[in-house]
Amino acid sequence: MKNTRFFGKLGSLILGLGFVPLNQASVVEAEAAFENLMPVPQEVKIGQGEFRVGKEFGISIGADASSRLLSASSRFLRRLDGRTGLFLQQDYVEAGEAHEAPGLEIATERAGEVVLGEDESYRLDISAEGIRLAASTDLGAMHGMETLLQLLNADDKGYYFPVSKINDAPRFPWRGLMIDSARHFMPLDMIKRNLDGMAAVKLNVLHWHLTEDQGFRAEVKSFPRLHEMGSDGMFYTQDQMREIVVYAAERGIRVYPEFDVPGHATAWLVGHPEMASMPGPYEIERGWGIFDPTLDPTNERVYEILEAVFTEMAAIFPDEYFHIGGDENEGHHWDASEHIQAFMKERGIADNHALQSHFNKRILKVLTKLDKKMIGWDEILQPDMPTNIMIHSWRGRDAMVAAAKDGYTSILSNGYYIDLMQPASDHYLVDPLPSDIELDAEQRKRVFGGEATMWSEHVTNETVDSRIWPRTAAIAERLWSAEEINDVEDMYRRLDTISIQLEELGLTHIRNREMMMRRLVGGYDVKALRTLADVVEPLKIYRRNSDLSYRSFSPYTLLPDIAVADAKDARKFNTLVDGFLKTKHKADEAAIRLMLERWVDNHVAFEQITEGAPALREALLLSKALKELSEVALASLNGKEVEADAVLTRAREPVAKVELQVVDAVERILTR
Amino acid sequence: MKNTRFFGKLGSLILGLGFVPLNQASVVEAEAAFENLMPVPQEVKIGQGEFRVGKEFGISIGADASSRLLSASSRFLRRLDGRTGLFLQQDYVEAGEAHEAPGLEIATERAGEVVLGEDESYRLDISAEGIRLAASTDLGAMHGMETLLQLLNADDKGYYFPVSKINDAPRFPWRGLMIDSARHFMPLDMIKRNLDGMAAVKLNVLHWHLTEDQGFRAEVKSFPRLHEMGSDGMFYTQDQMREIVVYAAERGIRVYPEFDVPGHATAWLVGHPEMASMPGPYEIERGWGIFDPTLDPTNERVYEILEAVFTEMAAIFPDEYFHIGGDENEGHHWDASEHIQAFMKERGIADNHALQSHFNKRILKVLTKLDKKMIGWDEILQPDMPTNIMIHSWRGRDAMVAAAKDGYTSILSNGYYIDLMQPASDHYLVDPLPSDIELDAEQRKRVFGGEATMWSEHVTNETVDSRIWPRTAAIAERLWSAEEINDVEDMYRRLDTISIQLEELGLTHIRNREMMMRRLVGGYDVKALRTLADVVEPLKIYRRNSDLSYRSFSPYTLLPDIAVADAKDARKFNTLVDGFLKTKHKADEAAIRLMLERWVDNHVAFEQITEGAPALREALLLSKALKELSEVALASLNGKEVEADAVLTRAREPVAKVELQVVDAVERILTR
Repeated sequence: MKNTRFFGKLGSLILGLGFVPLNQASVVEAEAAFENLMPVPQEVKIGQGEFRVGKEFGISIGADASSRLLSASSRFLRRLDGRTGLFLQQDYVEAGEAHEAPGLEIATERAGEVVLGEDESYRLDISAEGIRLAASTDLGAMHGMETLLQLLNADDKGYYFPVSKINDAPRFPWRGLMIDSARHFMPLDMIKRNLDGMAAVKLNVLHWHLTEDQGFRAEVKSFPRLHEMGSDGMFYTQDQMREIVVYAAERGIRVYPEFDVPGHATAWLVGHPEMASMPGPYEIERGWGIFDPTLDPTNERVYEILEAVFTEMAAIFPDEYFHIGGDENEGHHWDASEHIQAFMKERGIADNHALQSHFNKRILKVLTKLDKKMIGWDEILQPDMPTNIMIHSWRGRDAMVAAAKDGYTSILSNGYYIDLMQPASDHYLVDPLPSDIELDAEQRKRVFGGEATMWSEHVTNETVDSRIWPRTAAIAERLWSAEEINDVEDMYRRLDTISIQLEELGLTHIRNREMMMRRLVGGYDVKALRTLADVVEPLKIYRRNSDLSYRSFSPYTLLPDIAVADAKDARKFNTLVDGFLKTKHKADEAAIRLMLERWVDNHVAFEQITEGAPALREALLLSKALKELSEVALASLNGKEVEADAVLTRAREPVAKVELQVVDAVERILTR
Repeated sequence: MKNTRFFGKLGSLILGLGFVPLNQASVVEAEAAFENLMPVPQEVKIGQGEFRVGKEFGISIGADASSRLLSASSRFLRRLDGRTGLFLQQDYVEAGEAHEAPGLEIATERAGEVVLGEDESYRLDISAEGIRLAASTDLGAMHGMETLLQLLNADDKGYYFPVSKINDAPRFPWRGLMIDSARHFMPLDMIKRNLDGMAAVKLNVLHWHLTEDQGFRAEVKSFPRLHEMGSDGMFYTQDQMREIVVYAAERGIRVYPEFDVPGHATAWLVGHPEMASMPGPYEIERGWGIFDPTLDPTNERVYEILEAVFTEMAAIFPDEYFHIGGDENEGHHWDASEHIQAFMKERGIADNHALQSHFNKRILKVLTKLDKKMIGWDEILQPDMPTNIMIHSWRGRDAMVAAAKDGYTSILSNGYYIDLMQPASDHYLVDPLPSDIELDAEQRKRVFGGEATMWSEHVTNETVDSRIWPRTAAIAERLWSAEEINDVEDMYRRLDTISIQLEELGLTHIRNREMMMRRLVGGYDVKALRTLADVVEPLKIYRRNSDLSYRSFSPYTLLPDIAVADAKDARKFNTLVDGFLKTKHKADEAAIRLMLERWVDNHVAFEQITEGAPALREALLLSKALKELSEVALASLNGKEVEADAVLTRAREPVAKVELQVVDAVERILTR
């Protein structure tokens, strides 16, 4: 058994299924067929042999199969056919269909409910004669089909699934992605294709952030000025939101909305300035940051409108949870308002935290009446709040631990802020519930899982997928697979494969890059730009807009939007350098030299493309810095003494909102 | 003045605007700034100098500007900003906005009506101090903004618009694209992005083909079994169709529906078998071809349902035209039906043509009552039909000429069947109304224009854009620009540029190719596949499915789906060979050799990728044929006598539903 593979970490992996003992070569070969699973299942038993897929392959399914499962089965066939080009004969899978030729047999006990805690387990049994997928619910069966598609392999005889038994279930019941459709509006199609992506990596919750200072994105029939005046015409109709709920449920995904109050609420105030703590008028916010406009917790009109909005939304989103945000209200407008100050004094409300609690308790009543559980960001956790609210932790795991000790349920997003452009490895190693966490068994049960959060200050429909994917697949694995599955290099290897498969679902994270490069270059030859883009990453955390250059309508079409969080060639180079410094292998050195020489040569080519592309000229400095950096590295490899401090300093300088990701590695070469 | 450019054909082009006479060098330089216009405007006067675009650039607009024009203006700013990265300061353009810095001033007289024959003209006046766009209607102004975006240029000082005056208006009032959403369902997003593409090349009609044997795609509230049972769940709700009508109107595009009757109607009969000429039951058709199921023209129930459907649709589609199809009804089920034969005999209806006329006259009454003009394919033109119907000619221009002589209005689609995968040049040279056509002035007025037709047998949402674009831009130019604009090489050159710009609107015709290749290869290195794909084209006309291998759920993910109608490298090679054979230039020969050598070398690389990709193995023969072909060409260039008949024959053989496009050129090399 090889320890370098992820299977090495899976205690439950059993080789030599059945009675056939595998020799070492067979083990390696058999393991290879399982290399692309993501998230890694709880238990994989690898056998010997294959189930061969031909055009006669088809699905048999019970007479009581849910319509959702039938649709999912047909989609499975189309994706399998799309990858293999087999011209499968079976068209739409029908309930009670007994497919004649060997294929996939699906057995479920019942249609699952798309609610927190539903059974999502499944068992796959692939033999040379056929495949059996069994699950309590159709939700589990759908997860099993995604696993099966990841098991598709090919050899000189054609396509096959490897003989094996898989027993799988999620580690956490709440595995989410938050999409912020408010700061930058995201068209319906973006939500749909991302729901498909989520299903592929077994995520099961879409948290839909619908209001912000920059936009109110939900149609409200009782108070239409909210969306009409607060959205620049970019909002979801109620029919469209219902469409998303149905689309998600078809894929086993819960959808719950967030209406962020009392802060982050400027867009509400454009149509309803009477809700504000300070007199209006208000305009839709075009900048990024934390803003002062805040709902007035002393005003009954505010609760009237909130109740109307929540009541309409509760009818659209059947999920039991409802997110009220509650974050980052700094209370400046409360401090500045005479009548609010008087209200606090009169009621003995000590400070703004207590006032926000007062507000939260009022809306908790509304939500309770609507049969909804309230969830909000850390800040809603105030001493006097009841424990039937859920804490969504963006500030850190400590807050979550404290909440769990105090009896609150929670989910984690701190560490999963994919908008901050950190590498996948950073997110991957954040565990909501590490084994050494200081919680007892009862308290641990209160940690439901986590959510990747796609805040949309710096993304548009064109770029957003490349911020969500493929990194969110790594977070999905963290939330599904065992804690021990944590080999970063192996995660990255699998991420490369899953990333290609995700685009089959309509996601655009790879393909849009080239399109954006063609637009900037104004032509088809984007090689020099790609070479540079593959070694830079956008400024991380909150540095990208530290100069406040961006507003909501700014162009997100430039180098930092083409660059991604895990710069491909930088990662490759850094790995090579690490290996080389350890082993001094000549082959590694040769590969390093090749990359360095390419970067030296690229500068002239990059200069040429910027002649017709002024938008790229700012990046010339970067291209030059890469060239100089490569030159000193090559000189050092050639045994020359080099004075490189100035070069390293220049190469570390952010340019055009990106930074080179190979500087540390070069420094290690220089100081080896 | 250079005659090689398209301006050479434009009698109205005037160089040296104002008082500054241009010298020859200035002329060439000035002309270059106009090289990317498509469709070519009616009149371009080129001046000297530039209007420079900086971040202070903005739009001023009248207080009575339509909301449509305001939205279009804001979209213009975002696209300009996306290309230039200037961080324009102006956000959303508002009515009556007087932008302080020099920029674009838009003046319109009124909001245009989105109806046939509306004024779409515009005048652009670009001086070094500012740009003025004037038009009678906002529709014209929107065309002007598209022209302006095509005029964006760059030099070492930055981005600019060249000083010029443009006076423009369409040659034909009806410039359409038909999208068949019935054979393969197309999601809403596909319709929207294509509407944006249409607007970019000044098309103004979407003909929406909504029913077929393979699907009934429109929600019908009065007879819901039509869409519920006839669509596999893939249909447009009435809200969604209204959404498309609004989206299109916002872009100056009319939308009218086609409900194809009495043939092509199997999907109607699944839920309503009583409408059929022969007893049911019926199932949704999964094959391609012409099928026998036909509505029963003797059955009052048929007219009842048709009237209900047409009445609902007439309320959704405000356009004055309504397409009833009427094509390819072979009448076999009429012949076979006793009661239909009895009906004909009783009424003295001589043949099936007359029976179809009887049917058409009945539904003409319905449409007339609904205030709609009937349009149908050639076949609806029967001797006794009134002249207030419009003929949509798919069979040929002769039929259109005959119709015009008989007093019928018409549009042309014969020659614009983009689904048949013919090169753009073929479509480009088809003129609906060539100057030598045998029609008098009055008759000519009856030819309203034409429509590209995207029949969807062999496309899915993933591939359809690559069938529509960029070729439809060439058809758009034919329908907008002067007849004399017909230089094929120049059209292709401009098409390459417009193609890149079209993807900015969300179209996927370039970017999806690489995604499809990655899926098939199962990895990122698709070079060998791309090299092959760039010299093959899908089987043309109706040969692709001559073996009936395709059904509606077949995989459209393979080599013929990756290949496009104008294979890039084949076109380049063929042009090089033509030039070389004429001039024997060494540089051409060297370029030819490079391509041939690359194709020889590609075979080994292609063999390697097929090891993990059985779906591509069928194409090995093709790759080998290309290698052999290249080898004989190289041998011939090296002065060797080669016996190449067998090689040429093999290379001409279709493989994997595609064919090599460089065989004739190689044969010309061999026989030079």
